[in-house]
Amino acid sequence: MDIAVQPSVSWMEMNASIEDSGLFFPVDPGPPAKVGGMIATNCSGTNAVRYGTMKDWIVNLTVVLADGRIIKTRKRPRKSSAGYNLNGLFTGSEGTLGFVTEATLKLATIPEQTGVAVTTFSTMRDAATAAIQVVHAGIPVGAVEILDDVQMDVVNQMGGTGRQWKAAPTLFFKFSGSGLSVQDNIDGVRAIVLHNGGSNFEVEQDKAKQEALWSARKQALWSMMCMRETGSEVWSTDVAVPLSRVPELVEISKRDLDDLGLFGSMLGHIGDGNFHETILFDGDRERGLVSKCVHDMVRRALEMEGTCTGEHGVGLGKKEFMVDEVGEGSLQVMKTVKTALDPHWLMNPGKIFDLHNPASHK
Amino acid sequence: MDIAVQPSVSWMEMNASIEDSGLFFPVDPGPPAKVGGMIATNCSGTNAVRYGTMKDWIVNLTVVLADGRIIKTRKRPRKSSAGYNLNGLFTGSEGTLGFVTEATLKLATIPEQTGVAVTTFSTMRDAATAAIQVVHAGIPVGAVEILDDVQMDVVNQMGGTGRQWKAAPTLFFKFSGSGLSVQDNIDGVRAIVLHNGGSNFEVEQDKAKQEALWSARKQALWSMMCMRETGSEVWSTDVAVPLSRVPELVEISKRDLDDLGLFGSMLGHIGDGNFHETILFDGDRERGLVSKCVHDMVRRALEMEGTCTGEHGVGLGKKEFMVDEVGEGSLQVMKTVKTALDPHWLMNPGKIFDLHNPASHK
Repeated sequence: MDIAVQPSVSWMEMNASIEDSGLFFPVDPGPPAKVGGMIATNCSGTNAVRYGTMKDWIVNLTVVLADGRIIKTRKRPRKSSAGYNLNGLFTGSEGTLGFVTEATLKLATIPEQTGVAVTTFSTMRDAATAAIQVVHAGIPVGAVEILDDVQMDVVNQMGGTGRQWKAAPTLFFKFSGSGLSVQDNIDGVRAIVLHNGGSNFEVEQDKAKQEALWSARKQALWSMMCMRETGSEVWSTDVAVPLSRVPELVEISKRDLDDLGLFGSMLGHIGDGNFHETILFDGDRERGLVSKCVHDMVRRALEMEGTCTGEHGVGLGKKEFMVDEVGEGSLQVMKTVKTALDPHWLMNPGKIFDLHNPASHK
Repeated sequence: MDIAVQPSVSWMEMNASIEDSGLFFPVDPGPPAKVGGMIATNCSGTNAVRYGTMKDWIVNLTVVLADGRIIKTRKRPRKSSAGYNLNGLFTGSEGTLGFVTEATLKLATIPEQTGVAVTTFSTMRDAATAAIQVVHAGIPVGAVEILDDVQMDVVNQMGGTGRQWKAAPTLFFKFSGSGLSVQDNIDGVRAIVLHNGGSNFEVEQDKAKQEALWSARKQALWSMMCMRETGSEVWSTDVAVPLSRVPELVEISKRDLDDLGLFGSMLGHIGDGNFHETILFDGDRERGLVSKCVHDMVRRALEMEGTCTGEHGVGLGKKEFMVDEVGEGSLQVMKTVKTALDPHWLMNPGKIFDLHNPASHK
């Protein structure tokens, strides 16, 4: 129940190639993602509410260090308490501690039965509240995703799904498990949805029909990208907050977009408290406004005890938030680890944080 | 769905005190365990096959570093990709990188329905094979535990469970979820058990009867401890291997105990490939023999691409295996991190590894 792969392997191709084994790799970021990048950012995706994030699926890593040494973090146990958790240290380090050349990943069993449900709400707050209640009830959904009215409208306009959707706040659910458990979980979710004013609750359990029903979720980002005209750009960002704060964050962020007169859609892996905004804007005229909007959203998430990024990583764009998020002390610990393993800052320099003051990093 | 606690809080008392919230902390090591020690060893327990290990349940840690600085690893998001995963680094570091003074832990929802099943086999290999097939089938059991004939006989002799058990290789299962899903999972497990020659498949879903049925598992270690006479000692150890190697490891380890004429029992969190031996021996006469037996079991686990410890940690007793397990390079990386964060090796010195050659640790 594990597989050894190199970093440029596509997770979708990997899953296609092992389908006959009855096993699959459950972390599902965007379709173009490759294993190396998935490790670098500790990515997640729609299945994270059920299966966790990338760091939870690493058995071992082969890493080239800054000084050219090659290490393998451990052998092949599914769990271990032997020494420091180097898998967890390198995963999510955005290539700044070493270069991953091979990874052994855990696999999961393909569920016996699956299902997809879609339902609409009057407000994003109602949709978010229903989603959080599903998680709180302990119903083991495979995924729970929120899309706003703008996003659903964009999917309609781009016409890639072969049907028209109601342009309203919408929740998408995946279900998986044994036949009876899927039925039980669908019933449990339906009750919570109805209790929170959800309507048009559609369920599919046939494989092809499930894909058709999931298609609006799948085509959300691409539809948004297709809306671009000459000179227009896309800014996509993500934050995550404690579950109890999600409805509030979603509502305020939505109002903020409207108040600034920006064209942006909202989408979230809401069961993890993880939430994305994708803003389409005029590169010349609106950049400042978009930057303000994104900054406000991140600041709000941090005030709500959240994180500046739930799954995209820090890169260059979110370095400025690191001190506020983890504190000066934790940031210094990260820099100390970085400097100890890569004294000359050779590995992906300038990402996550800068070495402003060489004397202060110890 | 999280809770902030100090390190000397007992996980059992914590769960008792939050029961009314409908939430619980699912990591279940031995009853006396406290949160600080659970973090230090990255512990697990019987629920790990369903819920994962300690590192998967940490939201943030407050840590006193060697130089007296106090850091909080992050705010309160349930997931994050912002910077290095310090939660994962400190969890399992056995107090060698810092002193944890507070932890925010994720909580899970108490399942609607639970169940317990017990079944016996002719051989440990058959029992282990059945357990691995259950995991491979993707049946989301709450726990799957293996106990050998010696262990069951000891439980009988100590008489703490109010009934007599068949002194045979035995599997214990926990089930949890919605009503129908528990039923489905019990049916799925029963079919696999019968296919592998299991018999006396007993199931309980009533709460008190579940506890009675689980009692032999719960009293396994204590019963073994009670067998001690004057001068006798107990050596308890654990290893973990890839799932496919578990039946072989279990069989050879059992034969090894018998060949050496030692009195020891076997017990395992077999769904994780994690496996314990508890040996009762004469402190004066048999120490060398027991040491050989434990060393052989660890060497065998490492040859099978496993780990010298699945959940107990390295401490002093397993330092000698670290190079074989993770390799010289990974061990050097651990020492480099240790030395960078604790240059004078003040924090729990001598655990996990030694600093043999101060010049070589960078």
